[in-house]
Amino acid sequence: MNQSRLKRVCANMEAQGLSQILVTSTASVYYLTGVWVEPMERLLALYLDLEGRCILYGNALFGLEEQEGLELAIHSDSDDPCARLAEELRPGVLGVDKSWPSRFLISLLDSRRDVRPVLGSAPVDQARMYKDPEEIALMQAASRINDQVMEAAVSALREGVREDEMAALVETLYREQGADRSGEGQLVCFGPNGADPHHGPGRTPLKAGDSVVLDIFTPIRRYWCDMTRTVFFQEADPEQRRVYEVVKEANLAAEAAIRPGVPLREVDRAARQVIEEAGYGPRFTHRLGHGCGLDCHEPPDNSASSEGICQPGMVFSVEPGIYLPGRMGVRIEDLVLVTEDGCQVLNAAPKDLRIV
Amino acid sequence: MNQSRLKRVCANMEAQGLSQILVTSTASVYYLTGVWVEPMERLLALYLDLEGRCILYGNALFGLEEQEGLELAIHSDSDDPCARLAEELRPGVLGVDKSWPSRFLISLLDSRRDVRPVLGSAPVDQARMYKDPEEIALMQAASRINDQVMEAAVSALREGVREDEMAALVETLYREQGADRSGEGQLVCFGPNGADPHHGPGRTPLKAGDSVVLDIFTPIRRYWCDMTRTVFFQEADPEQRRVYEVVKEANLAAEAAIRPGVPLREVDRAARQVIEEAGYGPRFTHRLGHGCGLDCHEPPDNSASSEGICQPGMVFSVEPGIYLPGRMGVRIEDLVLVTEDGCQVLNAAPKDLRIV
Repeated sequence: MNQSRLKRVCANMEAQGLSQILVTSTASVYYLTGVWVEPMERLLALYLDLEGRCILYGNALFGLEEQEGLELAIHSDSDDPCARLAEELRPGVLGVDKSWPSRFLISLLDSRRDVRPVLGSAPVDQARMYKDPEEIALMQAASRINDQVMEAAVSALREGVREDEMAALVETLYREQGADRSGEGQLVCFGPNGADPHHGPGRTPLKAGDSVVLDIFTPIRRYWCDMTRTVFFQEADPEQRRVYEVVKEANLAAEAAIRPGVPLREVDRAARQVIEEAGYGPRFTHRLGHGCGLDCHEPPDNSASSEGICQPGMVFSVEPGIYLPGRMGVRIEDLVLVTEDGCQVLNAAPKDLRIV
Repeated sequence: MNQSRLKRVCANMEAQGLSQILVTSTASVYYLTGVWVEPMERLLALYLDLEGRCILYGNALFGLEEQEGLELAIHSDSDDPCARLAEELRPGVLGVDKSWPSRFLISLLDSRRDVRPVLGSAPVDQARMYKDPEEIALMQAASRINDQVMEAAVSALREGVREDEMAALVETLYREQGADRSGEGQLVCFGPNGADPHHGPGRTPLKAGDSVVLDIFTPIRRYWCDMTRTVFFQEADPEQRRVYEVVKEANLAAEAAIRPGVPLREVDRAARQVIEEAGYGPRFTHRLGHGCGLDCHEPPDNSASSEGICQPGMVFSVEPGIYLPGRMGVRIEDLVLVTEDGCQVLNAAPKDLRIV
């Protein structure tokens, strides 16, 4: 158990009036225990209460090992995985991790009608929002690698290369750099495909005049990097240039707005205002960004409706975009770390307009 | 909407006394609508009731399109994603998909205390258990590709190659064969590492006398293949040979036991009995197998505690194993399709003892 993180989680539980919680996401369990388990359909749950109990419930197949300050409760495939948990819970309010599959929650509630579930991720999520020095170092290192991968990918653009080939190249580059996974799901969008912010790479070949959106992300030593750059292939027409400059200005305006105490919705506003004033407001169709760490998407939410406030140690993405259906998309995304007096942009890949 | 699948789901709902359900898993929504969405932290839910309503709730970013027989309810990142769903639900019992993140269920229950959640995956899961001809063709094709990938991987074994290099090779081979993903998470275990059924590939180099467990799986056109073969590098000692033959006999005994009407726990028993009689019972530490289809692991459960009965159209894995800590592991896994009078083994990769 990481005692300093546990202490922060318990303080959050106390502040939120939660005397017992179930931590079930792979990343949150890892954050506290250092144990990484992807349980698939099996049960993984770390029970914490304010009297100092820490019990990790898991399947025998996970190969869990004893560690100081942590009790293990192992079940096998032929056991009811929730049985022991149901026995040991106290009556009353139980904080439940947001991602816990409903099958377990429903099963637990069936046998324990005296337990009332409430959303219980906040104590851990709020601890995880503020990266400690070890985490900051890992995220800085991951984003430095991402800069290199981006540069190598941009350099590899050539007439006729397909989106899926570029995505595979990014995956190979990540693997060579020691990424935890091969970097699945990269977004590579040529020309009109860029108008869909979530377009998956297809067989579209690159041609002159295309915008190229490269949104690339992977975990490295468990911590995610995530960056988007948009470049133009061989030429860019006046509208492409205008749109690019607006998105860049929005990205820079948002990053300039970040400092401790500033509400995240004002960071979103800073970017959105630039885009609205340029007449593209309705074409910026998503939030400005998302927290990033052990999960690629995690708190804080960086949007118009966010209730978060910038505080030192937060890491989140700043990724304004403009999407013109049938024509193109431009998005520029950095990860930023909130510091004592502003922010540190974790990505150094160039943001000036590039025609390659 | 796939009307014939929907009809089977509704018949299952009726039989199970469920008048309304929420289908939320990516694969189950795809099964019925043909739409593949990975919602990440966003809401995706297909509401079905017995009066013929089919409403797909999703985020604007998913780019959902109208289709006949399906109503769309789109929200944006700044909406409460559960608000409309909470308005439209009927009071009373609501079947909820097993994997739905608790965050949504808790939020729904907070605003709708007149709704009682029960586990509601069975109507769709039970329909999905019986593959229709289109699905069978896709799964046969995926496993044929898996046979080729396995043969290429076995051929590539050489002194000093690392587990992670072999895993990367399998991923590349899958990609070249048109897999949906690059085949992340392959299990490649040399020598003593094979004694952990879930050992992830590390930097261990291959050496003479090692057992080599290759458990490889990926989705191809949305349907999973999944196969394990164990070979020996350069030599195999008498104990390795004995263990191998026991596992092979267990695999064959289980496959021979499969025909419509046979309880799955008896299929598990057929394999386990061979291993027990050879004195390795405690070393077969997991269930015999799992259903496979749009998810790699899906119903039916193929274990000692399964309540499933073999029926035509079911596809599941048969994967007995023996694990000797500090020494080796052997596992032999096929996917099988239950037919009218037995089963069709979807994998043709050889199972006789191989020293390569």
